[in-house]
Amino acid sequence: MKAAVVLAGCGVYDGAEIHEAVMTLYAIDRNGGTYQLFAPNVMQHHVINHITGEVMKESRNVLTEAARIARGKILALTEYRAADYDALIFPGGFGVAKNLCTYAFDGPECHVDRVIEEAIRSTHKTGKPIGALCISPVLIARVLRDVTVTIGSDTTTAADIKTLGGKHENRQHGEVVVDRKNLVVTAPCYMLGSTISEIARDADEVIRAIKELLGEK
Amino acid sequence: MKAAVVLAGCGVYDGAEIHEAVMTLYAIDRNGGTYQLFAPNVMQHHVINHITGEVMKESRNVLTEAARIARGKILALTEYRAADYDALIFPGGFGVAKNLCTYAFDGPECHVDRVIEEAIRSTHKTGKPIGALCISPVLIARVLRDVTVTIGSDTTTAADIKTLGGKHENRQHGEVVVDRKNLVVTAPCYMLGSTISEIARDADEVIRAIKELLGEK
Repeated sequence: MKAAVVLAGCGVYDGAEIHEAVMTLYAIDRNGGTYQLFAPNVMQHHVINHITGEVMKESRNVLTEAARIARGKILALTEYRAADYDALIFPGGFGVAKNLCTYAFDGPECHVDRVIEEAIRSTHKTGKPIGALCISPVLIARVLRDVTVTIGSDTTTAADIKTLGGKHENRQHGEVVVDRKNLVVTAPCYMLGSTISEIARDADEVIRAIKELLGEK
Repeated sequence: MKAAVVLAGCGVYDGAEIHEAVMTLYAIDRNGGTYQLFAPNVMQHHVINHITGEVMKESRNVLTEAARIARGKILALTEYRAADYDALIFPGGFGVAKNLCTYAFDGPECHVDRVIEEAIRSTHKTGKPIGALCISPVLIARVLRDVTVTIGSDTTTAADIKTLGGKHENRQHGEVVVDRKNLVVTAPCYMLGSTISEIARDADEVIRAIKELLGEK
């Protein structure tokens, strides 16, 4: 499996959730796959001080910050071609709901970054699996609408997914939802109270489910 | 095991190496331990654009940036008391050689941040194990001098460790050096060409060796 992984920055409150991002890469590697990291070349909605939770008077670029998790090996998402990869995967973090779409501010009325929407649509059209962790299933539901996903068991987010046209199924750690029609695999991760080992397990389950969809065992 | 983990920021080129940091936390958790993250409350030496490698016209705080990896749950290193923890662990990243000490600029003549030096000395004095990944063994050698460590097989760094008064032993991935006299455990990680699974393995080996030193099997 050659996976494309999309990061929303670097840090749970304004970017990609770092543990989920790293465990996604680890899961791909330990299951015999390879990965290429991507991020949109846009400015972050804001920069959050991760100790105080306050907005900082700074501006940072999503692609440049995501490169920290990627150790520099990352491409702008405009370079993504669905034909070149076997799967497209979104770790979570508030950045997904702030930088990739506006769900954190607008709820189900949210807008999606054009390049993000195109990446999801082209992957879906070419019949390749999409994986989404934590809050990312909301983004997938916003773009594909009629899709079955899990974000764990948060009732507000689950209701929003219904409003978007999707279906939500409650899940615990280690349990994924596999939408076989749409080839979408989702898992709760930090949408549930979690240890880092549970994040590793959820990411691993998503990658194994994607491998199964691809016919690799 | 209740471990204290010290981060040097957030990003391989100016802070903590993110994969090593996350895999250290994962190794502690999967081996039945708990962790508290720490970082010095000092400004980073500089901020590096992780795509271009260039210095950015910004300034960032080591503790504030490390909080991204910690999901906000982090303390200033001045709060560290060796008596409260079973082990002190340093993941790698250039931040160790730029923010915790000046090895990246001054080689064996480097200075060590006072709070970092005190944390290492107090842990050593109270007979508790210290773990160090990647480039961090240089920091330990700079403070403790007569200590046996590995940074993999890089000849320049190995020679610098000798100059500092330490002993270097070459190691491959999955192999640690355990200095039983000083209770120091070290592993190469990204000082060798590495996959993320190898980082996970090295971190796990370090934590298992520390558990063994602590008499936990």
